[in-house]
Amino acid sequence: MPASEHMRAAINLVWECRTTCIETLYGHCLDMGGAHVAPVHVKAMTDCIQACQTCADFMTRGSALHGVQCAACAEVCDACARSCATLDSPPMQRCAELCRACAASCREMSRAPVAA
Amino acid sequence: MPASEHMRAAINLVWECRTTCIETLYGHCLDMGGAHVAPVHVKAMTDCIQACQTCADFMTRGSALHGVQCAACAEVCDACARSCATLDSPPMQRCAELCRACAASCREMSRAPVAA
Amino acid sequence: MPASEHMRAAINLVWECRTTCIETLYGHCLDMGGAHVAPVHVKAMTDCIQACQTCADFMTRGSALHGVQCAACAEVCDACARSCATLDSPPMQRCAELCRACAASCREMSRAPVAA
Amino acid sequence: MPASEHMRAAINLVWECRTTCIETLYGHCLDMGGAHVAPVHVKAMTDCIQACQTCADFMTRGSALHGVQCAACAEVCDACARSCATLDSPPMQRCAELCRACAASCREMSRAPVAA
Repeated sequence: MPASEHMRAAINLVWECRTTCIETLYGHCLDMGGAHVAPVHVKAMTDCIQACQTCADFMTRGSALHGVQCAACAEVCDACARSCATLDSPPMQRCAELCRACAASCREMSRAPVAA
Repeated sequence: MPASEHMRAAINLVWECRTTCIETLYGHCLDMGGAHVAPVHVKAMTDCIQACQTCADFMTRGSALHGVQCAACAEVCDACARSCATLDSPPMQRCAELCRACAASCREMSRAPVAA
Repeated sequence: MPASEHMRAAINLVWECRTTCIETLYGHCLDMGGAHVAPVHVKAMTDCIQACQTCADFMTRGSALHGVQCAACAEVCDACARSCATLDSPPMQRCAELCRACAASCREMSRAPVAA
Repeated sequence: MPASEHMRAAINLVWECRTTCIETLYGHCLDMGGAHVAPVHVKAMTDCIQACQTCADFMTRGSALHGVQCAACAEVCDACARSCATLDSPPMQRCAELCRACAASCREMSRAPVAA
């Protein structure tokens, strides 16, 4: 059974967030250096990339427990957004915005039944 | 900083659970067929494999939010254990036991500070 | 540095192939049963899902060795396409087509320099 | 069917290499800064972590195409070893050694039949 339109939109947002985090981390943060490669920031970005992956896959498979993974992903995305927001460069602000939007969407999906 | 002995034991258990789930799913369930490949069971095993992966990596990186991922992993492992327990073959019972042990360990780690 | 338009199109195709494989395996093959859940077929689909993931991430990071992973992905996608083509249902034929297109694209990207 | 002893040893080495790369990247390189977080090095380490993951999973599933992924992993590990070897700190030298050993093992496994 294909995912509902609502869930498909949520999945797309998670992938967009993940792709942006990868492009920002490996194509901007590493080039900037300094606070952009502080361990706590690189870990926050890497956590976000991996949590988004897992969350998107649970939704795409139509897993019964996708809500659990969405709830975890929301917290990880929020933490990544906070880390990005402390860094003063346009790509980080864009990344922070996407992480916040993804967190809100994941939080909503964490309450949605699998067949919604 | 290397993980504490306590966390390292938890990481090893998560990997053992994940490896056993992969070996059981691809080397036993698929060969058995029938209820062993029911969509709900294959999804439960696949969810467990992926949640364990994510959880282990968060702990190995020493991520601040590893507790969030450990808590999610505990729920996913419990669901997988319940699915395995309904299937009457020795490899499934062994897999169920490992999933239960992994869930208990992840639940404990979900309350542990990162530097514990 | 963002990926070139050419590489971005290749990345999108790999993700589309991966998503279709996940939806087809977990939302169609498992429901069909029989030859659709033969071990060799489920493994071929799972291999394709994972090879596509790795290949897409190498390209998205702008990794120097993305060509190596693209070449491997092309072989895995071709094998998955062959497995899908043996199964007589419309979703499998669509999946086979996407896997073949993805294989061709990955083969081309395996020869492209990272900054192309 | 469980993996042969020979393949199981190869799988364990790939996991050990992957775990060491994660611990070294997130627990040493990021703390050191400078050349240890140069984009080319962080990408080489990340590539190695992901290629090892994929390679180990193909072998654990007993996938027909595990040789293709082992061959790709060998090249990625060799590149990571070269990057580590340029950095003058004991953890990098240990990481380089493991990557070289893993590359040799993967190269051998790339020629082994799946049931060997």
